[in-house]
Amino acid sequence: MARNITSRSADYSQWYLDVIKAAELADYAPVRGCMVIRPTGYALWESVQRYFDEEFKKTGHVNAYFPLLIPYSFLNKEAEHVEGFAPEVATVTHAGGEELEEPYAIRPTSETVIGHMYSKWIQSWRDLPVLINQWCNVMRWEKRPRLFLRTSEFLWQEGHTAHATPEEAREETLRMLEVYRQVMEDKLALPVIPGEKTAGERFPGAVDTYTCEAMMSDGKALQAGTSHFLGQNFAKAFEIQFQNKEGELEFCWTTSWGVSTRLIGALIMTHSDDDGLILPPRVAPVKTVLLPISKDESVAENVLLPRAKELSGQLNEALGGLCTFVDTQFHMRPGDRFFTHLQKGVPLRLELGEKEMKAGTVRAVRRDTGEKTDISLETLIPTVKKLLDEIQDNLYTRAKNYRLEHTSTAESYDELKTLLAEKGGFVEAYFGGTPEDERRIKEETGATPRCIPLSDDSRGKCILTGGEGRKTLFAKSY
Amino acid sequence: MARNITSRSADYSQWYLDVIKAAELADYAPVRGCMVIRPTGYALWESVQRYFDEEFKKTGHVNAYFPLLIPYSFLNKEAEHVEGFAPEVATVTHAGGEELEEPYAIRPTSETVIGHMYSKWIQSWRDLPVLINQWCNVMRWEKRPRLFLRTSEFLWQEGHTAHATPEEAREETLRMLEVYRQVMEDKLALPVIPGEKTAGERFPGAVDTYTCEAMMSDGKALQAGTSHFLGQNFAKAFEIQFQNKEGELEFCWTTSWGVSTRLIGALIMTHSDDDGLILPPRVAPVKTVLLPISKDESVAENVLLPRAKELSGQLNEALGGLCTFVDTQFHMRPGDRFFTHLQKGVPLRLELGEKEMKAGTVRAVRRDTGEKTDISLETLIPTVKKLLDEIQDNLYTRAKNYRLEHTSTAESYDELKTLLAEKGGFVEAYFGGTPEDERRIKEETGATPRCIPLSDDSRGKCILTGGEGRKTLFAKSY
Repeated sequence: MARNITSRSADYSQWYLDVIKAAELADYAPVRGCMVIRPTGYALWESVQRYFDEEFKKTGHVNAYFPLLIPYSFLNKEAEHVEGFAPEVATVTHAGGEELEEPYAIRPTSETVIGHMYSKWIQSWRDLPVLINQWCNVMRWEKRPRLFLRTSEFLWQEGHTAHATPEEAREETLRMLEVYRQVMEDKLALPVIPGEKTAGERFPGAVDTYTCEAMMSDGKALQAGTSHFLGQNFAKAFEIQFQNKEGELEFCWTTSWGVSTRLIGALIMTHSDDDGLILPPRVAPVKTVLLPISKDESVAENVLLPRAKELSGQLNEALGGLCTFVDTQFHMRPGDRFFTHLQKGVPLRLELGEKEMKAGTVRAVRRDTGEKTDISLETLIPTVKKLLDEIQDNLYTRAKNYRLEHTSTAESYDELKTLLAEKGGFVEAYFGGTPEDERRIKEETGATPRCIPLSDDSRGKCILTGGEGRKTLFAKSY
Repeated sequence: MARNITSRSADYSQWYLDVIKAAELADYAPVRGCMVIRPTGYALWESVQRYFDEEFKKTGHVNAYFPLLIPYSFLNKEAEHVEGFAPEVATVTHAGGEELEEPYAIRPTSETVIGHMYSKWIQSWRDLPVLINQWCNVMRWEKRPRLFLRTSEFLWQEGHTAHATPEEAREETLRMLEVYRQVMEDKLALPVIPGEKTAGERFPGAVDTYTCEAMMSDGKALQAGTSHFLGQNFAKAFEIQFQNKEGELEFCWTTSWGVSTRLIGALIMTHSDDDGLILPPRVAPVKTVLLPISKDESVAENVLLPRAKELSGQLNEALGGLCTFVDTQFHMRPGDRFFTHLQKGVPLRLELGEKEMKAGTVRAVRRDTGEKTDISLETLIPTVKKLLDEIQDNLYTRAKNYRLEHTSTAESYDELKTLLAEKGGFVEAYFGGTPEDERRIKEETGATPRCIPLSDDSRGKCILTGGEGRKTLFAKSY
């Protein structure tokens, strides 16, 4: 076990921070609750971004940029919205050496200012749908910050669309939820449950909120992304109107959806182990590391290193991009060299020693299982590709099995309480209560309804009220 | 001439705003001095970003993210720096419903907070060089905002590097200046003059500042990007120290360099004409537009459109990416359809009518020259590629010739004044004065020293002081 990393069983929270530190993903900034995303962490975010951005563009969306600052009067225009966000807002009161007439909020999310612009841009049904996404920083002041999961500033994307009909807007809301699910499962190897949020968990100002819920390796839930059907709430608040084909003025139907740097936290807590970070190959900026190793430093540098560089060139060409790293830390002991890459989560380590050089092989070591195999250089490219695919699949399957093993069903409120307290994880139960009931459950169990899974449309007796309920997942959450 | 665009000769400032509006590049935001970058403008920024980011990575840099907020005490640590930026800063005084103990500045630039982090990350010579870049938003409060050129918030990249020796840091400063020059000239078709800034024009806190200066189509200069050698100024202010090979503690030598969304302004003012935007093909998100055209709407939709889609598929495949757009605005008159793309600066328009369909051709119309040619579909791909290259080269050459025609030499201060007043553009003269002398020149002529071109190392008698001077470019500037 790594000496610089607390074990998960000893202290999960400390383990999480230790993994981030050892992998050099992020640091706390000298600003309360804010973080610095270090190059290794940022490369991971870029890789995650790229996958989502590609899918957004494929589904017809375009990117734009809206201002960081939002007039306070805008927030006040949608009652639920301001109630939800005002307590977390950071406020600019002075600028350019003067006190401002009206203070500005640093955007906690941009429905309001984007709504204002849409009302200017949209005139006719021909202008619809408007399908815009924004990659930016947002700020929500945090009393108890936690790297990637809850920081006062974070990076995200926020999609904002406007449509002529509620059907089209609902379709968009679910389309983007499905895009999220797909990228999360296929690229980040995060098994998620797409579902609808209960009334108490909705986005402030939304008619319906949908979520992709993931289970972390301590059994707690993490909301990995959300998609909101906003009805005409923001359209009415900001007068987003269009002339329909009949020449009548109508309010638009809008949606918004977002994923954030939180996903990096989800990646860490889903896949990593007591030795440190484990990354799925498809999002790992460095997919393989090649280590020329010899007791004789000059052999390592002059004989093995040139060969390693040649091989890394071939791998980079075959796998696309600069995804193979050649380690030249010859001043360190082999074990320590292994360790730096292991703790950074590199999926596959390839060792090239004198023995391997003679045999025409490299020794491959998988990060996920520790399994070692000797690969003939003649089949290096296809074998590395195959191994990376296997690692990707294994991480997904492992996480999915973990979730299945930690999901149970409660037939009564007492059983829900017992399961949450003793077994943890996700507990399914029929629920049909109010936000007030949700608050009571949270107070008594520490858990909240995470979602009503889209895959299960069944109805049954609510464990709390006895009325009609829908199949709902409960869990403690991040 | 376009009715929605003021001519350059009538009112250059209004022309600039009209071009932006007609091309839907940006809008003023409902926040003082801030802008909204609309999808067309943002796609252009993404295209510019991609070229720079690629070059940064090729030269060994990695991206990271530092916080938006900067403690005021940090700004105060470097005397010249705070003096330069304090008057433009926006200040956060409240957050999370409480007044902050220490107010935060919204970053006008990040030398200070990055310096603070580098002092924690850098221990030994083995940690050097640190080569980090950040893409982000920054804020500098503007009293007289102008879309893309001077807005209170803008997007940029800021590179920040730390080195063991001054030679290495100086080399980096000039390497990045050269990267800037290359991308600006090769991709943005902006001819620029790389040079050194005079003392009065240096970045606050820098030892030396270098710039790429471009000439706009009204003869005024625009600083398109800067690269700074910071010496040990920030290293001493933030204690960025490393242990050298001999085990002694030394201060690092640092650099910083940046380009911003200002470049979009430079693109507009260099290439566009009285009809609207003109974009160089390499940065144009849409490189060609294909228009199926017929008086008979059903022929256009059912006969010409399928063929146009087929051709656009071939073009996209050959040119890489989704760079061909098929226009289906059949409800508009052909002239109006042409006009929307013309005003958006699309480099090449391809018209497909019934006549062309029969002849197996398309009619190509160049945005830069208006020249029309019929292209046989058999040679469509190579001909379009060739035309796009020609347009790219022509825009560069045209801008370079314009600059050469508007550059003159002054042998005396009187001549400088006359040339600036009567001819405008760039005026070269030997100059060896102080920042005080620079201020006097600005007051008396409206012009400032833009740079001492790297290409001309000659010395001569300073036109103002009579002492030794270096060849310096003077101009009015944005």
